[in-house]
Amino acid sequence: MKVAVIGGGSSYTPELIEGFILRAGQMKVDEIALVDIAAGKTKLKIIGELAKRMLKKKGLSTKVTITFDRVAAITDADFVLTQFRVGGLDARANDERIPLKYRVIGQETTGPGGFAKALRTIPVMLEICREMEAYAPDAWLINFTNPAGMVTEAVHQFTNVKAIGLCNVPINMQQMTADILEVKREEVNMRFAGLNHLVYGTSVHVKGKDQLDVLIKRIAAGKNMNMKNIYDAPWEETFLQALRALPCPYHRYYYMMDDMLEEELKTSREKGTRAEQVKKIEQALFMTYRDPALDIKPLELADRGGSLYSEAAVSLIASIVNNDHAIHTVNVPNNGTITQLPDDVVVEVTCMVNREGPQPLQIGKLPTACIGLIQQVKAFEQLTIEAAVKGDTQKAYLALVANPFVPSSKVAKALLEELLEINRPYLPQFELKKQASSV
Amino acid sequence: MKVAVIGGGSSYTPELIEGFILRAGQMKVDEIALVDIAAGKTKLKIIGELAKRMLKKKGLSTKVTITFDRVAAITDADFVLTQFRVGGLDARANDERIPLKYRVIGQETTGPGGFAKALRTIPVMLEICREMEAYAPDAWLINFTNPAGMVTEAVHQFTNVKAIGLCNVPINMQQMTADILEVKREEVNMRFAGLNHLVYGTSVHVKGKDQLDVLIKRIAAGKNMNMKNIYDAPWEETFLQALRALPCPYHRYYYMMDDMLEEELKTSREKGTRAEQVKKIEQALFMTYRDPALDIKPLELADRGGSLYSEAAVSLIASIVNNDHAIHTVNVPNNGTITQLPDDVVVEVTCMVNREGPQPLQIGKLPTACIGLIQQVKAFEQLTIEAAVKGDTQKAYLALVANPFVPSSKVAKALLEELLEINRPYLPQFELKKQASSV
Amino acid sequence: MKVAVIGGGSSYTPELIEGFILRAGQMKVDEIALVDIAAGKTKLKIIGELAKRMLKKKGLSTKVTITFDRVAAITDADFVLTQFRVGGLDARANDERIPLKYRVIGQETTGPGGFAKALRTIPVMLEICREMEAYAPDAWLINFTNPAGMVTEAVHQFTNVKAIGLCNVPINMQQMTADILEVKREEVNMRFAGLNHLVYGTSVHVKGKDQLDVLIKRIAAGKNMNMKNIYDAPWEETFLQALRALPCPYHRYYYMMDDMLEEELKTSREKGTRAEQVKKIEQALFMTYRDPALDIKPLELADRGGSLYSEAAVSLIASIVNNDHAIHTVNVPNNGTITQLPDDVVVEVTCMVNREGPQPLQIGKLPTACIGLIQQVKAFEQLTIEAAVKGDTQKAYLALVANPFVPSSKVAKALLEELLEINRPYLPQFELKKQASSV
Amino acid sequence: MKVAVIGGGSSYTPELIEGFILRAGQMKVDEIALVDIAAGKTKLKIIGELAKRMLKKKGLSTKVTITFDRVAAITDADFVLTQFRVGGLDARANDERIPLKYRVIGQETTGPGGFAKALRTIPVMLEICREMEAYAPDAWLINFTNPAGMVTEAVHQFTNVKAIGLCNVPINMQQMTADILEVKREEVNMRFAGLNHLVYGTSVHVKGKDQLDVLIKRIAAGKNMNMKNIYDAPWEETFLQALRALPCPYHRYYYMMDDMLEEELKTSREKGTRAEQVKKIEQALFMTYRDPALDIKPLELADRGGSLYSEAAVSLIASIVNNDHAIHTVNVPNNGTITQLPDDVVVEVTCMVNREGPQPLQIGKLPTACIGLIQQVKAFEQLTIEAAVKGDTQKAYLALVANPFVPSSKVAKALLEELLEINRPYLPQFELKKQASSV
Repeated sequence: MKVAVIGGGSSYTPELIEGFILRAGQMKVDEIALVDIAAGKTKLKIIGELAKRMLKKKGLSTKVTITFDRVAAITDADFVLTQFRVGGLDARANDERIPLKYRVIGQETTGPGGFAKALRTIPVMLEICREMEAYAPDAWLINFTNPAGMVTEAVHQFTNVKAIGLCNVPINMQQMTADILEVKREEVNMRFAGLNHLVYGTSVHVKGKDQLDVLIKRIAAGKNMNMKNIYDAPWEETFLQALRALPCPYHRYYYMMDDMLEEELKTSREKGTRAEQVKKIEQALFMTYRDPALDIKPLELADRGGSLYSEAAVSLIASIVNNDHAIHTVNVPNNGTITQLPDDVVVEVTCMVNREGPQPLQIGKLPTACIGLIQQVKAFEQLTIEAAVKGDTQKAYLALVANPFVPSSKVAKALLEELLEINRPYLPQFELKKQASSV
Repeated sequence: MKVAVIGGGSSYTPELIEGFILRAGQMKVDEIALVDIAAGKTKLKIIGELAKRMLKKKGLSTKVTITFDRVAAITDADFVLTQFRVGGLDARANDERIPLKYRVIGQETTGPGGFAKALRTIPVMLEICREMEAYAPDAWLINFTNPAGMVTEAVHQFTNVKAIGLCNVPINMQQMTADILEVKREEVNMRFAGLNHLVYGTSVHVKGKDQLDVLIKRIAAGKNMNMKNIYDAPWEETFLQALRALPCPYHRYYYMMDDMLEEELKTSREKGTRAEQVKKIEQALFMTYRDPALDIKPLELADRGGSLYSEAAVSLIASIVNNDHAIHTVNVPNNGTITQLPDDVVVEVTCMVNREGPQPLQIGKLPTACIGLIQQVKAFEQLTIEAAVKGDTQKAYLALVANPFVPSSKVAKALLEELLEINRPYLPQFELKKQASSV
Repeated sequence: MKVAVIGGGSSYTPELIEGFILRAGQMKVDEIALVDIAAGKTKLKIIGELAKRMLKKKGLSTKVTITFDRVAAITDADFVLTQFRVGGLDARANDERIPLKYRVIGQETTGPGGFAKALRTIPVMLEICREMEAYAPDAWLINFTNPAGMVTEAVHQFTNVKAIGLCNVPINMQQMTADILEVKREEVNMRFAGLNHLVYGTSVHVKGKDQLDVLIKRIAAGKNMNMKNIYDAPWEETFLQALRALPCPYHRYYYMMDDMLEEELKTSREKGTRAEQVKKIEQALFMTYRDPALDIKPLELADRGGSLYSEAAVSLIASIVNNDHAIHTVNVPNNGTITQLPDDVVVEVTCMVNREGPQPLQIGKLPTACIGLIQQVKAFEQLTIEAAVKGDTQKAYLALVANPFVPSSKVAKALLEELLEINRPYLPQFELKKQASSV
Repeated sequence: MKVAVIGGGSSYTPELIEGFILRAGQMKVDEIALVDIAAGKTKLKIIGELAKRMLKKKGLSTKVTITFDRVAAITDADFVLTQFRVGGLDARANDERIPLKYRVIGQETTGPGGFAKALRTIPVMLEICREMEAYAPDAWLINFTNPAGMVTEAVHQFTNVKAIGLCNVPINMQQMTADILEVKREEVNMRFAGLNHLVYGTSVHVKGKDQLDVLIKRIAAGKNMNMKNIYDAPWEETFLQALRALPCPYHRYYYMMDDMLEEELKTSREKGTRAEQVKKIEQALFMTYRDPALDIKPLELADRGGSLYSEAAVSLIASIVNNDHAIHTVNVPNNGTITQLPDDVVVEVTCMVNREGPQPLQIGKLPTACIGLIQQVKAFEQLTIEAAVKGDTQKAYLALVANPFVPSSKVAKALLEELLEINRPYLPQFELKKQASSV
C-alpha cells in the first residue's frame, strides 16, 4: 500500500504520520511518498526527516520517499492525499485582507477569500487528477485542500478520479458533542448535512435518546462548540432552539456576519490576519521539527489548528482498506442525497464507508430554515467552479455577487478586479482567455 | 358578471374603474361591489361616488355597490379583487422605518417590511377565502395586496380558492422594454420567471430576433427600466451582460444593497419614508376625488405609483372571461414550472390565460446566477407564511434570519421583537399562541 | 421562405401542398423543395408535377423544386419537413408481420414494429440534422417520420437542430371531441399529455364547462374517437370513468392488448397487414396523381389515413412564422413539464407556439393510472434510441424486454435476432459494431 | 424488552423463536407475546407450548404469553411483528387460482393475487397501527405480512407508526451469492434496490473486486439463485449480461411471463396451487409441533419456505437494540433514495440500521432497463393501496389494469368482479362504500 501526499512539506504532515502510526495495527502502509514543489524544498526535507524518525521510533517498516516529481509520487499510489496551498500563506493573507478593505469578511475558505483560493487551486487539482487518471487510475483522492467542497466538486465534474473531500469540522463537532454530553465519541449517533464549512448537525442521539435540546442548552450556556481558528462568538439559545439543528463553527460568518466582520477588522489591525499569525506559528514549528532529537509529533502543532485532522483522514483510509463500514462525514457527489440540491454538486454528508468508498445515508429534504442559505452558497460555489475551470470573468463576477458576504454588485466588481490582479501569477486560465479574446 | 373589490376605498380604485371602462366593449360588468372596513367609510364613499360618475359619463350600465358587509360583497361574485391594507399607511410607515434603525433596508414588500406586512395580511386574507369558499366557490380571487407572492401562496396552501397574484412590475418591464426598443408592447415576446418583486426577464425577442443585448446596452446607457417608487440607481453594463437576464426594478435592493440602504436612510431623514410621502399624496388625491365635477381618473393619480395596474388586472379578467389565450405574467403555484423550487410554492411566471385560468409556460431550470437568490428568498417567504398562519414566533425569527437584508440573528431578534410589539393590534394569532402556551 | 420536404415523393405530399394553399393568405412560401432518394425517382416526379399543377391552379407563385440532392434542398431552408420511410412499405410489412409470428402485436409505431423502424430511421435522421447544422442552422425541423417521439428525442439529444415532432393524433382527437360535443374545434379547450401514440386528453372544457364526463359517455355510447388505421374496438364506459382521462386511439394496443392482437392476426391472415393494404392504396393513388388533368388533392387520399395531417403541419409553421401564439400539441423536450419523467426525454404535450417555437404549458404530475404505463414505454423508448444511435445489441435486447407487448426475455431475444437479420441492409451501425468488436 | 407477534399461531413462529435463541447472547428478550384470532386457537396453543419448550431447553428466562387480546399483546411492546394472513390459506388459494382462469399469473404477492391480499390485509394492518399509536407509541412495527411493500407503504402514509417491511428475499440472494462465489455471506458487499419482490442486486463486490460478471456467468451455468416456492426457470446469460444487475427470483414472473404462466397452469392442474400444497405441509408440521418431546425447530419446517426468515428479522431487531450499524435490505419510505420514484412510496433498499432505525444508503438513478418496470409496478401498488384504504372500486379497477400480468381492461374487469365477490367477507370497506353511495 502506497500513500502519496501532495503538499507533503506542510506543517500538518507530522499529524498525518502520527495517524498512520496509531493505526499501524489495522493497516500496513508500505510507502508514504511526500511530494512538494521546488520552492518548498527546505520544508519538505525537514518534514521528511521528522517523518522517518517518527516511524523508526515505533519500529515501523513504512518507507518514506521525498520527491519533487509529482508523477513519480502518484504512480501506483493507492491513496493520494492533497494538502497543498497554491501561493502559500502570502496568497492566503491577500484572501483575508483584501475583502476587509471593502468591509467584507475576509475568510480563506468561505466568502471572497475561498473564492480566490478556488480560482488558484482548482486548475492545479485538475492537473493532478489528469496524472492520477494516467498513473494511478484506481487510486482514491483524499482532498483536504480548501475550499474542500468546491475543489472536490470540480474533480467530480471534470475528471474520472474517485475523490473524497475531507474536513475536520464534522469529526470535531461530534467530539465536542460527546464532550458536552459526557459520553464517548462513538456513543453519539449524529447526522450531518450541508456543504463544506456550511454543515449542520441535523440529529444527535445517545443510546436511542434525542439529545439535541440538551446539547443546545449547554452550548448556549457556554460549552465549547468552536474551533481554534474561528472567533468564538456565543450562540444564542433562542436561535438554536428555533433552528432545531446544530450549526457548524463556520456558520458564525453567516449568522453573525456583523460581529464577525467587526472582529476580523479589529484583529487584522491589532494582530494581523489569521494567515499572518499562522506564518509565525509555522516558522516556530519548523524550527522545532528541525531538531534531530524530535521523533514524535510536537505538542505545539495543536496551536496550528487542524484538530483531529489525521484521525479523520487515516480512519477514512482504514475504512476503505478494511471494509469496516464505519460512519464518516465527507464531501461526495449529492446524487439525490439532499433532494433540494442538483445531483451533480458535492455535499458534506454522513456516509457509511466500505471498500467501495463512501455510501451516503439518504437525507431527503433539509428544513426550510437551513436549505435557503445552502442553496445560495451552492450557487456561489457552482459559479466559482465554472469561473475557475474556464477562466470566465463573467462567471467569476456573478459568483462574487452571489456570495452572501458581498453587499452589492459594485463591491463585487471592485473586489474581483483586485483579487484577479493580485493573484495573476496563479491564474493562467484567465490570462489565456484574455489573449484569446483579444485576437 | 359581478366584481367585488375588497379595500374598495383605496385611492387606486379609479384606475380600476377606468380599466373596466376601457374594456367595456370586450366584457360586460353588471356590478362592481366596493367593500371596506368601517374605519374607511369616508374614503369608500368618495371613491364610490367618483366611480359612479366615471361609469355614468361613459353611458355604462354597470351598477356600483358600496358596502361594509364583506360577505354581501363576495356573495355570487365572479371575481374578487383584493387591494386592502391592514393597518393602513401608518403600519406601512413602521414597516419602512423600524428596520432602518438597524441599518436594514426598510421596504414594504421585500425584507422585514414585507415580512411584517405578511404577518398582518395573511390571516385576514384567509378569512376572506373562507367566505369565498362559502359564498362564491367558483369565483376567482385576483390579489394585488402585497406581499402579493406570499399572500397568494398562503391562499393556495390553506384554502380551495382559485387565486391569482397580480403585480404591475412585469407589465411595466414589458412596456419599458417596448419603449426602449421602440416597438409596441405586443410586439415584444418576453418571458419572466422568479418571485414577486424578484422576477427576471429571461428572454426578449422582437420579430424573432433576440434583443436582450440591445436592451441591456440601452438600459446601461440610461434608458428607463425603473418604477416610480424605487430609487433609480443605475445598472452597470458589465453586470447585466454577465447576468444575461433583465432584473426587475426591485432587484436593486439585493444587487445594490449598500447604496439602496444609504439612499433610504437619507430620504427618510429628509423627506420621510415612502409611506409618509404617500400619505400626503393620498390626502391630496382624495381632495381631488371629492370634486363632484370630476368624472374621469385624475392625472395626479399617476404620482401615486401603480402604473398599468388596472391594465394588468382588467386584461387578466378579460382573458378568463373571453378565453382569449393572452399572455400574462402572474403569481401561480409552481407545480414544477421552475424545477429548482418546490411544487407547492407560488412563483411569478409567464402564463397563457384561458377560461380555465393561467396556464404557466414551462421553464425548467433557471440560470445558477439567478436561482440561488430566488431559493434563499423563497425560504424566507415559506418561513414567513408558516409564522403568519400559525402565529409561530420561532418560524418568524428564522424567517428574518433567512432574509438577505438582515445581517445577523442578533439583528433579526431585535427587529422581530420590535415589529411584533408595534404590530400587536394586527397580530392576534401571536397573542393567542402566547396565551395558549402560558397556560 | 423556403420549405424543404424530405421524402417529398410520399403519397401524403399533396395534402401538404393543399395545406400551404389554404394558408396562402397568412403566409407566403417562396419555394417548396421536394427531395427523395434515387429509388423514389418516378414517384417524386409525379408528385412534383401534381404539386405544380395544384399551386398554379390557385395562381400562387410558390416555386416547386424537385431534387435528389438532399443538401441542396436543405440549404437555406427555413423549415425542413421529414416524412421519409427507410426501407419503404416492405420494411413496414416486416415490422408488422414478424412480431405476429410470436403472438406479439405487430404495429409499426409502437411495439416491436416501431422499435425496428426507429433502428432504421434514427441514423438517417441524425445525418439530415448534421446537414441542417451545416447548411440551414436556423431552420426548424418538423418531423412526422414515425416513431415521431423517439426520432425527435434522438435529434434533441444528439444534435443542435431545433426540432418539433408532429403527429395528427391530438388534432384529430380535438376534432372528434368537437364533433361529439357538437361545437367547433376552436371552442374546445383541451389539454394533452403523454408520449407520441400514448397521449391522453387530460381535460376538456367548452365555454368554461368541464365536458369530460359528457364526452366519455358519448364515446362509450358509440361516438367515434378512432382513426382510420386502427381497429375500432369499443371503449368501455366504466373504464373511461375510472381513468378520468381520454386515451388516444393507439392506447387500444395497451388497454385491449388481447383483442387487438387477435384482430391483427385475423386481418393479416385475411387481408394482409396494414402495410400490405397501404401498398395497394398507394399504387392506386399514384395512378390518380399521374393524371395531367388533376390539379387538386384527390378525394381518395383520405383512404390513406393521415387526416388533418397537413392542417397540423401547416398551422404549426404559420404559428412560428406569424408569432400567433396558437395552441398545438407537439413533441418537445420534457424539461420538467411532466415532473415524473426525466428532463431530457421528448414528450407530446400541449404548447403555445410563438416565433421562438413551442412553449409547453406546465403539467406537473400526471395521475398514477396514466404515469406507470408512460414511464414503462418511455424506458423502452430510451433504450431503443440508445441502441439505434450506438448500434448496441444489448440495449436493443433490453428495449424489447421493456416493451409491454413482449411477454418474456425469451421472445424478445428471438424477435431481436429476426428483426436485426431482416433489416440488416438498413442497420449499418450494428454491422460496424460487430466488426469493431470482432477485431 | 417485549416482542409482540401478531399471527403468532403461524407455522413460521418456531423459526422466529429459534432466531431469538441464537441471539440470546446479544439481546435479552423479557417477553414474547403471541397473539392470534379466536379461529386460530388450536394452532396458537400448539405453537405457544413448543416455543416454551424451545426456550426452556436453552435455559432462557424469556416469558411466552399466549393471548387473543391484541391490545394486551401490543401494550408496552418494543417490537410488534406482524405475520398474520387474513382469510388464511383458503383465501390464498383463491388469489392463486382465480387469475389462472383468465390465463393470468396467479401469484399471492405480485399480480392480481397480491392485489387481492392487499385489499384484505391493509385495513387490518391500519387497525393494528391505531392500537400501536395508542398503546405502544414508541414501538417498531416489523412487518412480514405480504404484500410486504404495499402493506408497509399504507402504514407510512396513513399512520404515525415506525414501520419496517421485511422480506427474506434479499438476505437469501446475498447468501446464495456468497455460496456461488464460495465466500462467507458477510464478505459480500451487495447493494439492493427496487420494490418488494421486484428488487435487483445492483452491485456485488468481494474484497474490493466487482464480482457481478462472475456471478452472472455461474448463475447462467446453473448455480442456484432461486427460492423454494418459485418455479426455477433458468436465467439466460445474454439477458443477465445485458441487464448488468441481478434480478430477484420473483422477477421470473415478469421476465418469463409466458413460461411461468404455463408452469402455474400445469402445476395447479397436477398438484394444486402453492396454497393447496402449503396447506398439506402445514397440517403435517402442526402434527410434528404437537409432540411434547419436541423442543427444537423441526427440520421439516425448511420445506415450508421462509429460509433465513428469522435470521433477517431477529438480526434487524438486534441492530436497532444494539445500535450495531449493520447492513439490512428492508422496505422503507423512499424519500428521494431512488430519485425516479415519488418521495412518499415505500422501496426495498439497502440500509445501515442503528438505534434510530434503517438509514437508507443513497441510490440516485436506477438504470433505464430496471426503472420502467419498477415505475409501472409502483403505480399498480399505489392504486391498490388507495383502493384498499378507501374501498374505491374505480381505483381497484385501474390497479388491475396497471398490473403487467393483466392483458387488458376487459380481463381486469372480470377479474376484479370475481375477486371482490369471493373476498367479500374480508372487504368491509367496499361494502360500506356501496351502501353509502346507494343512499
